[in-house]
Amino acid sequence: MKVEICCMKYELQKTDSQSKARAGKMTTDHGEILTPIFMPVGTAATVKAVHQRELVNDVKAQIILGNTYHLYLRPGLDILERAGGLHKFNGWSGPILTDSGGYQVFSLKDIRKISEEGVKFQSHIDGSRHLFTPENVMDTQRIIGADIIMAFDECAPYPCDYSYAKKSMEMTHRWLTRCIDRFDSTEGKYGYSQSLFPIVQGSVYKDLRIQSAEFIAEQNRDGNAIGGLAVGEPAEKMYETIDYVNDILPKDKPRYLMGVGTPENILEGIALGIDMFDCVMPTRNARNGMLFTTQGIINIRNEKWKDDFTPIDETLGGYASTFYSKAYLRHLVKCDEILAAQIASIHNLTFYLWLVGQAREHILAGDFFSWKNTMVKQTMQRL
Amino acid sequence: MKVEICCMKYELQKTDSQSKARAGKMTTDHGEILTPIFMPVGTAATVKAVHQRELVNDVKAQIILGNTYHLYLRPGLDILERAGGLHKFNGWSGPILTDSGGYQVFSLKDIRKISEEGVKFQSHIDGSRHLFTPENVMDTQRIIGADIIMAFDECAPYPCDYSYAKKSMEMTHRWLTRCIDRFDSTEGKYGYSQSLFPIVQGSVYKDLRIQSAEFIAEQNRDGNAIGGLAVGEPAEKMYETIDYVNDILPKDKPRYLMGVGTPENILEGIALGIDMFDCVMPTRNARNGMLFTTQGIINIRNEKWKDDFTPIDETLGGYASTFYSKAYLRHLVKCDEILAAQIASIHNLTFYLWLVGQAREHILAGDFFSWKNTMVKQTMQRL
Ligand SMILES: [Zn+2]
Ligand SMILES: [Zn+2]
Repeated sequence: MKVEICCMKYELQKTDSQSKARAGKMTTDHGEILTPIFMPVGTAATVKAVHQRELVNDVKAQIILGNTYHLYLRPGLDILERAGGLHKFNGWSGPILTDSGGYQVFSLKDIRKISEEGVKFQSHIDGSRHLFTPENVMDTQRIIGADIIMAFDECAPYPCDYSYAKKSMEMTHRWLTRCIDRFDSTEGKYGYSQSLFPIVQGSVYKDLRIQSAEFIAEQNRDGNAIGGLAVGEPAEKMYETIDYVNDILPKDKPRYLMGVGTPENILEGIALGIDMFDCVMPTRNARNGMLFTTQGIINIRNEKWKDDFTPIDETLGGYASTFYSKAYLRHLVKCDEILAAQIASIHNLTFYLWLVGQAREHILAGDFFSWKNTMVKQTMQRL
Repeated sequence: MKVEICCMKYELQKTDSQSKARAGKMTTDHGEILTPIFMPVGTAATVKAVHQRELVNDVKAQIILGNTYHLYLRPGLDILERAGGLHKFNGWSGPILTDSGGYQVFSLKDIRKISEEGVKFQSHIDGSRHLFTPENVMDTQRIIGADIIMAFDECAPYPCDYSYAKKSMEMTHRWLTRCIDRFDSTEGKYGYSQSLFPIVQGSVYKDLRIQSAEFIAEQNRDGNAIGGLAVGEPAEKMYETIDYVNDILPKDKPRYLMGVGTPENILEGIALGIDMFDCVMPTRNARNGMLFTTQGIINIRNEKWKDDFTPIDETLGGYASTFYSKAYLRHLVKCDEILAAQIASIHNLTFYLWLVGQAREHILAGDFFSWKNTMVKQTMQRL
């Protein structure tokens, strides 16, 4: 078995004195990532409605996420491999993280079957039958060419009884061992290094979460993730869980909270020592006309914006947020114009990247905690 | 009655020796337009799927079109007036031409009624009842703030019997007189000048077209348009009609062929002395995965492009056409991704603006005719 020589580095630059917030720097073969960071979700090889140059120049994204389930089905591994990996295929030259596909196949409720071997499922597109296993999901993410590869885990539903949560977590741990075996015995295909992040599970049960966090920490990978949160449990339960899990996860590795969340969730997550976030919310809500701004949340469909000719968000700055007015964007949304999704998506993502960038500045400046409390109120109010 | 003092100028710069093709320069209060020119269609205050800065920097549009029918219904005249006109509302600072809304209301077959007074119709959105008259359509375009306002005409269907075509043309002429009376007795609202273009009708009947062209030419407006073509008649019939109509329309005014067309139609139209074109084809077909390129027409949904990792159109140049590959765009189209419409729309519009720009260069260089014949073949072949 080959020994994985990984090039990914994480430097812890500063820890906040009044919270567990951290500022850090990750280094990958596709560039640096300043943490805390938000990762725009690029499901099917595209961050929906956003050009690649806009991700770089406007949003100022540092890393994006791809969904293994979607990429595996379309364009498929053959095309991705012949393209030279996802970076070459879609032209995004920064770091990419891929999920394992698990979350998506589990949500195909009626057309998937979980066993120790893995998950059998049918494509939501054409009904074709497929099998994901810990081993082939490593191979798949190798072929996609992700810089950060996620372990294949079961994300238990919420609510979930203790016995199911325990069995599920134990299988996730066995699957992790299989993931690591496969990952460490294979190499990247495109000449740059890839890292594997294991995932803490255990639903909302403290003993299970602690047991899982300890198992995950022991693996000593380049970074660690917390999964199975923000699936319907109360926010307080989520924060509490993050809190004790992060006390166990190593401080010298980045911590990734999967699939979270609102500006408040992200700011509280940062305060609890999370370094990486992803969520479809900024882009999905953008397509529904919901804007996150520096002053609060706007439902741009609302009548009150119809004659507001001021920029979407003057404070945030940037093209989409200052060139276009609220009244214009409302008009586009009401007309189902594609440009509405484009403007709102760039705006919301720019805001999310601004938010984590500001958090980082305030951690470095030493006044994160009071800033965070102000910003949670300010950004979550309805305008 | 006030005398219209118009600031729009047209300078005829060169006429081709082997065809009727012309190179010219229009000057409006919102900037110059080098002709022949193609105008991207911005139906509802947006060129679909294209950011305003992309229209300027990538497409290099010099003038865009707005649809009065759509703008009148949404966002409505109240909002447009309070915004300070369409330029202020959508941020496009170059010249804008608006159609009269006639074409759109006539196509509402079952929910409109034509009379001498004007056209009663129901909104396709909410069924509300409205009346367009020659007079109020002038007022509406004044409020929208178009640099070029089109006369309210009836675009007769094809085929259309001689008697209907004659009656329709005669009413269009009476409507034109009413348009001119209203236009010349009113002023622009926003401090810049507006011009009114009358429209030649007469279906495919030579005597009617000649009669109409003579009537339109006599009005001595800043520019003239040919309507009622490309509605189903054979292309040869269209070219023949343009040919004798252009012999009557004044040489010292720009000539606008409405709603046309394919690259071939545009090149042949230029050869017949047309200066301005608009068509939804580049953007609508883009949304269906049909690309116009310097090498020919591509249906990007076709299997053959799935592993073609070369740029969409290297010769054309520009971001959308060279950054993204055919295989990537095909993937996006197959997945119904918004980015597909974005890339293909910028590409197709960039191609259309390139095509008319090249035509202009070749007119100025004196080799337009042979270039045109080569390009018709090259750009219309299926790849
Ligand atoms: Zn989420
Ligand atoms: Zn057309």
